[in-house]
Amino acid sequence: MSEIRRDPITTRWVAIAPEIIDDLSFFPSLREDDSASSCPFCPGNEALTPASLWTDRMEAERPDEWHVRVFPNRTPILQTEVAENPQGKGVFDFMNGLGAHEVVVHGREHTSHLSEFTRGQIAAGLRAYRDRMADLSGDRRLHYVMVHYDRGRRAGAALAHPYSQIVATPKVPAAVEEELNGARSYYLIKERCVFCDVLTEELRMGTRMVVENEFYAAFCPFASRSPYEVWLLPKMHQSDYTSQTDTQLEHLAETVQSIATKIDSVLGEPALHMALHSSPNLKAKSDNWRSVPQDFHWHMEFIPRVLERAAFEWGIGFHINPVAPEKAAQALRTPH
Amino acid sequence: MSEIRRDPITTRWVAIAPEIIDDLSFFPSLREDDSASSCPFCPGNEALTPASLWTDRMEAERPDEWHVRVFPNRTPILQTEVAENPQGKGVFDFMNGLGAHEVVVHGREHTSHLSEFTRGQIAAGLRAYRDRMADLSGDRRLHYVMVHYDRGRRAGAALAHPYSQIVATPKVPAAVEEELNGARSYYLIKERCVFCDVLTEELRMGTRMVVENEFYAAFCPFASRSPYEVWLLPKMHQSDYTSQTDTQLEHLAETVQSIATKIDSVLGEPALHMALHSSPNLKAKSDNWRSVPQDFHWHMEFIPRVLERAAFEWGIGFHINPVAPEKAAQALRTPH
Repeated sequence: MSEIRRDPITTRWVAIAPEIIDDLSFFPSLREDDSASSCPFCPGNEALTPASLWTDRMEAERPDEWHVRVFPNRTPILQTEVAENPQGKGVFDFMNGLGAHEVVVHGREHTSHLSEFTRGQIAAGLRAYRDRMADLSGDRRLHYVMVHYDRGRRAGAALAHPYSQIVATPKVPAAVEEELNGARSYYLIKERCVFCDVLTEELRMGTRMVVENEFYAAFCPFASRSPYEVWLLPKMHQSDYTSQTDTQLEHLAETVQSIATKIDSVLGEPALHMALHSSPNLKAKSDNWRSVPQDFHWHMEFIPRVLERAAFEWGIGFHINPVAPEKAAQALRTPH
Repeated sequence: MSEIRRDPITTRWVAIAPEIIDDLSFFPSLREDDSASSCPFCPGNEALTPASLWTDRMEAERPDEWHVRVFPNRTPILQTEVAENPQGKGVFDFMNGLGAHEVVVHGREHTSHLSEFTRGQIAAGLRAYRDRMADLSGDRRLHYVMVHYDRGRRAGAALAHPYSQIVATPKVPAAVEEELNGARSYYLIKERCVFCDVLTEELRMGTRMVVENEFYAAFCPFASRSPYEVWLLPKMHQSDYTSQTDTQLEHLAETVQSIATKIDSVLGEPALHMALHSSPNLKAKSDNWRSVPQDFHWHMEFIPRVLERAAFEWGIGFHINPVAPEKAAQALRTPH
């Protein structure tokens, strides 16, 4: 059984899967043969993956006509079928590999470009995120559900077929905890959400704005870690992504499509990473995050992977960004 | 002038260099022509770089016979010639791009393998780290000096010629601050260094040990974030790398050589990242880190880049590692 281990120095958590992989042949994680005929994400190859947990045609007469489907990872390192069983051994703390790991397939085409997706297809993916997050949050042992989309080898994508991953864990990941702590510290002084204050200022200044509509706004953040980093937020204060209605998600799809099109126009379809940062599971056992509905604000971070040296910087936590976000936003705003 | 900006939510710092790069041609950071004749790090091409700040032949009659040389980065984003000038503008905090960015060239050969380096050449590189860190720490405005070595494209190396980078900043990078905070919390309860306690337990258990000699020991950490991650520590408690003597650095070179040879034997010369985590600059203006000599322990982290998906995990701070450190250590200990 896999374990979730706590580093005794930093207290960060790491999932370790001793029994699943014990030889090095696992490492070439990119498939040599990445063609539609062998692709487990292509229509007709559904038997190569576990059964669907969600599709956009769940209720339809022809469920095989899905545009978006979600299924569990074939070799899950984290599983809901185990007890947490937290233990200590000397200075070392660990627990069983409780959690979930799911794959969201976007679209029926093996090699597709975000610019070719219809707004409806993007909206279906956003509904998949919401519905799966809500379902996984029903397990009170799971404190966080991460959602991320990766495109291109440099962003770590294993296949050309567009997909996202959903990972649910009994621990809040360090990057989100950093945001939660910062947002709470700000709230304790100001009694306002720091994301709301930042958005107000960005809308007022305008120099870093990328796109906005009635419900959502996107800008290049003041301290962008990567060139052309874009954050997307709901304009109304909301901590939890799962509260979005279908109608709101249609508007969100419009914003996501606009950001993706702009990034691709300016940077020529770069490797791309998108992470959805929602609140921790508010139904979870602990009341650690009780104040979150007031002080945290869900958002999406779009990070084009244009610099080779990024790996080091993400590890050490000090970033050097050669493109000012004001210049990036200006380029992204320019119609193409 | 470049700026160091504070993210208003997480309070992490990012260096932004608006004026140095303003077009996208910067991004293909890997040189198309990476041959010895055009390599700025090869002997004979010294005129392509700024003048040496340090060489292992500084005092010699033939200084051009260097094996290791250090010089400032040609387009420095951080510079010591500026005043900090911290400012706020609404919710946004920033300061001038104070700091330093230097390059350490290891060896005279353009394409060389760590296994081909003599112990003396490795020791010269370790002395270069120490001497430059000590020199930069004389500037009381600089709170941290980072040192890292990267090999291979996947680790972000721009050239085949082996090199390290030294980056001095007025802020402690987030990853080190995380370690400092964890180590201090532990010390406040136990009145012992957490690194010393971990090392004692690793030596006692033996299952994760990789190599040791009189002064240094290396093991695969309990919560390894990456397959075959290795940490190297001095056995005696020491917070500051710059306190190493030349004799100690000969022993350290032996340990580094042994780790590199083992990693290359098991993984076949993978892309590799090494980060040296020393204490913050204890001469710096702030007394924030006053307790560091007791509770922090310098170390080197060796991280082979064998998984494509690593970028996401380093960003979000929740790692999934398919190889247990006990298995990795066993493979690394096996003689090759």
